[in-house]
Amino acid sequence: MNTDTLRYRLLDAQLALAREKQRAVILLLTGHAVTHKGEVVNRLNHWLENRHTEVHALGPSSEEQARPYWWRYWRRVPDRGRIGIFIHGWYGDALFARAERRLSPGAFQDRLAEIRAFEAELAAEGVVLLKLWTDIGRREQRRHLTDLQQDPARAWQVGVSEWQRHGQHAVIEAIGRTLRDDTEAPHAPWQRLPFHDPAEQLTRVGRALLAALEAPPEPPAATLARRPAESPGTPSLGRASAAVAERLDKVAYRERLANGQARLAANAREVARRRIPVVIAFEGHDAAGKGGSIHRVTAALDARQYRVHRIGAPSDEELALPWGWRFWRRLPADGRIAIFDRSWYGRVLVERVEGLASEAQWRRGYGEIHHFEQQLLAHGGVLIKLFLAIDKDEQLRRFEARAATPHKRHKLTDEDWRNRERWDDYQAAIDEMFARTHVPGAEWSLVACDDKRRARLAVLEQVNERLEARLASAV
Amino acid sequence: MNTDTLRYRLLDAQLALAREKQRAVILLLTGHAVTHKGEVVNRLNHWLENRHTEVHALGPSSEEQARPYWWRYWRRVPDRGRIGIFIHGWYGDALFARAERRLSPGAFQDRLAEIRAFEAELAAEGVVLLKLWTDIGRREQRRHLTDLQQDPARAWQVGVSEWQRHGQHAVIEAIGRTLRDDTEAPHAPWQRLPFHDPAEQLTRVGRALLAALEAPPEPPAATLARRPAESPGTPSLGRASAAVAERLDKVAYRERLANGQARLAANAREVARRRIPVVIAFEGHDAAGKGGSIHRVTAALDARQYRVHRIGAPSDEELALPWGWRFWRRLPADGRIAIFDRSWYGRVLVERVEGLASEAQWRRGYGEIHHFEQQLLAHGGVLIKLFLAIDKDEQLRRFEARAATPHKRHKLTDEDWRNRERWDDYQAAIDEMFARTHVPGAEWSLVACDDKRRARLAVLEQVNERLEARLASAV
Repeated sequence: MNTDTLRYRLLDAQLALAREKQRAVILLLTGHAVTHKGEVVNRLNHWLENRHTEVHALGPSSEEQARPYWWRYWRRVPDRGRIGIFIHGWYGDALFARAERRLSPGAFQDRLAEIRAFEAELAAEGVVLLKLWTDIGRREQRRHLTDLQQDPARAWQVGVSEWQRHGQHAVIEAIGRTLRDDTEAPHAPWQRLPFHDPAEQLTRVGRALLAALEAPPEPPAATLARRPAESPGTPSLGRASAAVAERLDKVAYRERLANGQARLAANAREVARRRIPVVIAFEGHDAAGKGGSIHRVTAALDARQYRVHRIGAPSDEELALPWGWRFWRRLPADGRIAIFDRSWYGRVLVERVEGLASEAQWRRGYGEIHHFEQQLLAHGGVLIKLFLAIDKDEQLRRFEARAATPHKRHKLTDEDWRNRERWDDYQAAIDEMFARTHVPGAEWSLVACDDKRRARLAVLEQVNERLEARLASAV
Repeated sequence: MNTDTLRYRLLDAQLALAREKQRAVILLLTGHAVTHKGEVVNRLNHWLENRHTEVHALGPSSEEQARPYWWRYWRRVPDRGRIGIFIHGWYGDALFARAERRLSPGAFQDRLAEIRAFEAELAAEGVVLLKLWTDIGRREQRRHLTDLQQDPARAWQVGVSEWQRHGQHAVIEAIGRTLRDDTEAPHAPWQRLPFHDPAEQLTRVGRALLAALEAPPEPPAATLARRPAESPGTPSLGRASAAVAERLDKVAYRERLANGQARLAANAREVARRRIPVVIAFEGHDAAGKGGSIHRVTAALDARQYRVHRIGAPSDEELALPWGWRFWRRLPADGRIAIFDRSWYGRVLVERVEGLASEAQWRRGYGEIHHFEQQLLAHGGVLIKLFLAIDKDEQLRRFEARAATPHKRHKLTDEDWRNRERWDDYQAAIDEMFARTHVPGAEWSLVACDDKRRARLAVLEQVNERLEARLASAV
C-alpha cells in the first residue's frame, strides 16, 4: 500500500467512525525520548480530518491535582466518533515516575493494575485502544540527540530531560518491557515501533491506526468476578431482623439530632482543613426517606463545601462517553463533599432490574464500580454508602399517604408504582450488590427506616463514624 | 407571612422551577464583612431542595486563571430549573479589587460595563437575577467583630481580611454605592439588607427569593444597537469586486504555501511561549473550502497546541444553559489555539435565515457576540475572523463536482442545497454581520475563494499578519 492509498483509506475509515458514532479511538504513543513522537503525531493529525481528533500531551492542572489520578484521563476520553491521540499519557506517567523512583515498586504494580482496569472498562464501552512503543538504541539515541543539538532550527527540541532520559536508557528499556508485558491485552494491544525516519514512522503508525479502525479488536468478554467470600459484616435484606424499634419521641429526637449535626459540622470543617474529599452515596427503597435524610446531613454543612448530585437519566453528552464518566465528572475536589442521591449503583439495581442495561453491562458494572471506588480511596478520600430500607407494607402505607397529601403528591410517580411491582427482583439485586461490593473502605451501611427519626439519626451516626475513622488516621 | 408559610411557598416555587425547566435563578449576596452572609446561605439552602441548588464561593483555579475573566462565571451559570447561589461572586471581585486598588478607576468602569452585559445576556436567556447587598454600620461592624472574636466557638470566622475590610468600611461603602447604581437594571435589581440577626436576615432573603421566583422580572427587551458607522475597511459581499484573479500555478503555490506555513509555525511557537490565547473563526459559503483552508493552517501547527471545534447542533447540556455557553466553554487556555469551523456567527447567519433563532434572539446576538469577543481581547488574546466567499455560479459548479465524485459525495448534503435556495437572504445577513461586527481587534477578513490556491495562501497570510501584529506589542 503506497502512502496515498494509506492516507485515503485512513480518512475514509475515520469518516465512517465519525458518521457511525459507535466507537471512539485512543491512539497512545510512548517510549524513548527523541523518537519523532511529536512529529509523527503532527503529520498524522494532518492526514486525518482534525475536526474529529484531539491531541493530549500536557501536565495536570490544579483542578486535576485536586482529584483522584484517573480523573484527568477520564475527562479526556474522546466522544464516540472521535480519535484521541495521547503522547505518553498514563504510560508516560507510570514509566517516568518509576524511572525517577517517585513510584515504589509496589505502587508501580498497583498502577499497572489500574491501567488494566481503566483500559478494560473503556474497551468494553466501545473505545478502541492502540498503544505504540517507540524504540531506539542507546547509541542511536545519543547520535540523534547530538545531531539535533547541532541543528539550529531544531536544537530547541533537546532539553535537560531528553539527556536525562538518555542517561536512563537501560532503566526505561527495562520498565518499558514490564509495562508492556503487564498491560498487553487483546482489546488493548501494544505495538513496538523500531526507530526510523519520521516518514517511515508515520507510515507505520498510519497502518496500525488503519488496522484498528478497519478491524477493531473484540471488546473484552464480560466476566463476572467470583462473588467474594462474604465478610461477617455484609448487610442483607433477606437476613435483616423484622424487629421494629420503638418510635423515638420528638424531644429525644431533637436533642440527638442537634448533637449529631454539631458533631458533623466539626468533622466537616476538619475534613476541609485537611483537604480530604468525601463521597456519600444514598441508595434505598422508594419512599424510604432519602431526601429527608440528606437534608438532615446537609443542614450541618457549610453550603460552600458540599453539592448534592441527583442521578437521573444520562445527558446526551454523557451517552457519548463510557458509562463511568457520569460519576467521575462529579467527584469532589479535595476537601469537598459530594452527596449522591442515587448513584453508580443504579447500574446493578434499576438498570439491571428494568433491563436498561444488558446483562453484560451490569455484570461488568461490578468491576467498574470497584475500580471507581478504589480510586477515590487511593486518593485518600472517604466513601460512605448508605442503603435506606423499608419493608413492603411500610412502603405501601407511605405511597398511599403521599397520594393523599396535596403537597407531597409530586413525590409519587408512576415509576414508583412500577418499581414496586418488581419488589422481589429488586430485593435479590440489592442483596447481590451488598455481597459483591461491601469491601474494606467501601462498606455498606444498611439503615432500617421504618421509623424516620431513628433512621435520620442512624444516617448521621454512620456519616460521623466514618469521617472520624478517616480523621483518626495520620495522613 | 410567617416563617413556615414562607418556607412552604419557597419550596413550592422552587419545585415548580425545577419541574418546568424554563428558567434558572442566580441569587448573589455581597456587601460588608461579618453580615451573616455564609450563615444565611447555609440556612436558606436548608430550606430549599438542595438537589437543585449549588453554592459558589471559591477563588479561581489555575484553569480559570488561564482564560478570560468571565469564563469562571460562565461555567458556574446554573442549568434551567436550578438555583445558583453566589457569595460575593463577580461583585466581590470588582468591589475588593477596587478597594485594594488592584483595579484602576478606568478598569473598574470597564468591569461594570462587562457586568451589565453579562447580566443582560443571562436575563435574556431566562436567568432570573437577584442581587443582595448586606449593610452594616461601621460601629456595629466593630462591635460584631469583637463579639465574634470573644466567642471561642466562632472566633475562627474572624481573620485578617475581616479586620482589613472593617478598616476600609467607608471605601467599601462608597464603591458599593457606585457598583449598585451602575448595575441596577429591571432584569437584575439590587436589594439592600440592613443588618439584623441571622434569623431575620434569612427571612428577608427568603422573601426576596420568593418574589423573584413567583414574579420573575421581565427579561430585557431585545434592542438592536444602532448600526455602527461603517469603518473604511468593512468588507461587503455586495461591493466585492467580480474581478477573478488568474489561477496560480502549482509550483508557485507550493513554494508560497511552504513559506507561509514556516512563518506560521514560528509565530505559533512564539504565541505559546508568551502564553497568548488565539481564536480563529472560519465562516463562509458552503463549498468555499473551509475544510481545506483549516487543514493548511493546522499543518503548520504542533498538534498539541491547537484544537478544531466544529460547531453543529447544540447538545442537550448546552440547551440547558444560556446560548453563549457553547462558545465560552471552548475558549482556549493561554498559549493555545482554538480553530472554529463555523462559529458563534451562526446566530446571525444560519439561525437567523432559517428561523432557528427568533428575531429577538438574533438581534440580541450582536451584542452578545461583541461582549464575548471583547472578553477574549481584554484577556490579551488574538481573534482572527475569516469569511471564505465564492459566487453563486462557482458554488453550483462545486456542488455538481462533489455529487459526481464518489469520495467527495459525503461532503454534499441536502442542507447544502436548501441553503443555496436562500442565497440572497444569506448574502444580506452576511453583509449586515460585516457591518455590525467588523470592529477594532475583531476585524473580518473576506477571502475570495474562487481560486482555491490563492484562497489558502490568503488565509495563511491573514493569520500570520494578525499574529505578528499581536506579537509586535510589548505585553
